[in-house]
Amino acid sequence: MPPSPPPPLAPGATIGILGGGQLGRMLATAAAQLGMKTHILCPDEQSPAFDVCTKRTVADYDDEEALKRLAGQADVVTYEFENVPAATAAFIAAHTPLAPGQNALEISQDRLHEKRFLQQAGIAVAPFAPVSCLQDLQEALDMTGMPAVLKTTRFGYDGKGQRIIGNRNEGEKAFEELNAAKGTGSLVLEAFIPFEREISLIIARNASGQMAHYAPSENVHRNHILHTATVPARICGKTRKEAVRTARKIATALDYRGVLAVEFFVSGANGSPGADKREKLLVNEIAPRVHNSGHWTMDACPVDQFSQHIRAICNWPLGPTARLCDAVMTNLIGDEVFRVPGELDPDDIPHVYGKKESRPGRKMGHVNRLIRQNGQGEN
Amino acid sequence: MPPSPPPPLAPGATIGILGGGQLGRMLATAAAQLGMKTHILCPDEQSPAFDVCTKRTVADYDDEEALKRLAGQADVVTYEFENVPAATAAFIAAHTPLAPGQNALEISQDRLHEKRFLQQAGIAVAPFAPVSCLQDLQEALDMTGMPAVLKTTRFGYDGKGQRIIGNRNEGEKAFEELNAAKGTGSLVLEAFIPFEREISLIIARNASGQMAHYAPSENVHRNHILHTATVPARICGKTRKEAVRTARKIATALDYRGVLAVEFFVSGANGSPGADKREKLLVNEIAPRVHNSGHWTMDACPVDQFSQHIRAICNWPLGPTARLCDAVMTNLIGDEVFRVPGELDPDDIPHVYGKKESRPGRKMGHVNRLIRQNGQGEN
Repeated sequence: MPPSPPPPLAPGATIGILGGGQLGRMLATAAAQLGMKTHILCPDEQSPAFDVCTKRTVADYDDEEALKRLAGQADVVTYEFENVPAATAAFIAAHTPLAPGQNALEISQDRLHEKRFLQQAGIAVAPFAPVSCLQDLQEALDMTGMPAVLKTTRFGYDGKGQRIIGNRNEGEKAFEELNAAKGTGSLVLEAFIPFEREISLIIARNASGQMAHYAPSENVHRNHILHTATVPARICGKTRKEAVRTARKIATALDYRGVLAVEFFVSGANGSPGADKREKLLVNEIAPRVHNSGHWTMDACPVDQFSQHIRAICNWPLGPTARLCDAVMTNLIGDEVFRVPGELDPDDIPHVYGKKESRPGRKMGHVNRLIRQNGQGEN
Repeated sequence: MPPSPPPPLAPGATIGILGGGQLGRMLATAAAQLGMKTHILCPDEQSPAFDVCTKRTVADYDDEEALKRLAGQADVVTYEFENVPAATAAFIAAHTPLAPGQNALEISQDRLHEKRFLQQAGIAVAPFAPVSCLQDLQEALDMTGMPAVLKTTRFGYDGKGQRIIGNRNEGEKAFEELNAAKGTGSLVLEAFIPFEREISLIIARNASGQMAHYAPSENVHRNHILHTATVPARICGKTRKEAVRTARKIATALDYRGVLAVEFFVSGANGSPGADKREKLLVNEIAPRVHNSGHWTMDACPVDQFSQHIRAICNWPLGPTARLCDAVMTNLIGDEVFRVPGELDPDDIPHVYGKKESRPGRKMGHVNRLIRQNGQGEN
């Protein structure tokens, strides 16, 4: 018999959070709304999340004294980023529950582990092969064909750590560059997917195995940074159901606790009649945390992804994920934040992260525009 | 020419808040969402709002050194309760903008001032007369008839400081009791209104004179404490429009900045055909702050009363007040808070205030139940 799930944490419990950026900030706010105390640990004393938490610890992630204090006070510890060092995660988990668990961290930190995990779980991913030398690369290119994408297995984000390879010469050049930059990981070659759309799905699961998902969003990037997330995504019902089924399979396989984001490529939807039927879904990557593409839930859903994550890691029943209206989330990058409040449309709802300094490419806030139906929203 | 309104405060500004209870807590959270820093002053070091603010000051409201530091750091100061001492308000206002202004405080602190202000603004209130001796009372009872209600002019809340008078003997007894308890204020006799319903309307106004209101809620009390607030209220369209017109008139007359709550009695709606046409609206009282009867906006509206208050006092454009679905807010009083999370319905959204101790009659949290339309809220 499986062990029975832990009882729900009562209001008044303390949630520890590793990381004090905007995701930590929005998690802390959601925790407070449910009556929880929060304790945030982050090396940066100007962390945005420090504005909204009960207790602050400025410390590095390998500061065992600080981690011990955090774990000692917290009834559960979570994190806002998937690159929590393995040693930190293990240290916390030895003292207090860590949610999501170490397995989710390990898998999402390494692109090769992730691909293999997905493949073993019977989930469709782009063809891939590990690359540790030039000969590996040539053999891998034979398998994927070109173009293909060479990636570092670790610490890639916002388009960093990857190169598109159009011919064998580009392949060698990409290998030299990325091999020098790969750090503790290795490289992986993936077939290039000529996808029409990228969508993501946010799902939550608690220790009792209850799951709840939000509508998949359609995501558009600019300069490799998420620009907009729109619901509903322009996909057919069959594809939507498959996305949900896939996300549930992943969450179950990981015995997951918390909110999980799954990014998909959608290909084959070329717009001709009946094309929907040919839509094909591949998982691009997963993130074991609340996700930028789920920020629209803050204003369009009764219970948003942050509140849902807190419920899930506290083993509360999950809340309703209904979408009360359509929405477009737009990130405010760098100086775009100065559009608030003067340049907003009346229906735009701004969220500003309280970062001290605006820098190019830095996520400073986001705006949710709600698309209400005719007649919806009388007052 | 009137002076032009001040420019909007940019994100990163500091909002000072007097009072650290649940309203201060929800205001601080809303301010953070808009990128504002918060500084809360409260005499109680276990204030719930201290969990979610940038800076905390534990000090009495007459501690001028502490008030000076708060006013020196804050770009605007607001409050969560209308009984801010006049001297405190004056001291703050001499150093930095106070919103809502001193006039709103003065009027709402004294039931007699309030009645006279409303009367002068041409707004219907129950017949009333000041009472400072037994002879005043007898004359006032001649005017109002019986039953009537004798009230202290100051510090009445949740049914405290008032007595219903059914005959002359009860009148004398009520006078002796309340006269002994009246403190710095005096007494006022009001006609007893046999109302069918109590409704309230939350309206916001900024320094540019822009106004936005939420749907009126229908309020039910238990043991003189708000029990539920339901939208929509069961009133006819004519009454709803009159409530909006009245609230706008009050906000304009006060040159108001922030969120204002107006409580009304609705009488004459006896349920017979055509009865709606005979509905009569009287203002019971006003509160120059966010209000318990507006907590439903947190989950049923894109921009809730707390966010709206912050926008208004920062002179931002006001946000959409649309009601995306119907809702019932139920307060969690005393040990009722222990129903969270185990006894919740899946559609119930709990808000828990993080108070250290549950006591009978103490507001510990609330639950919003959203009533979705058929088909609304697919995901």
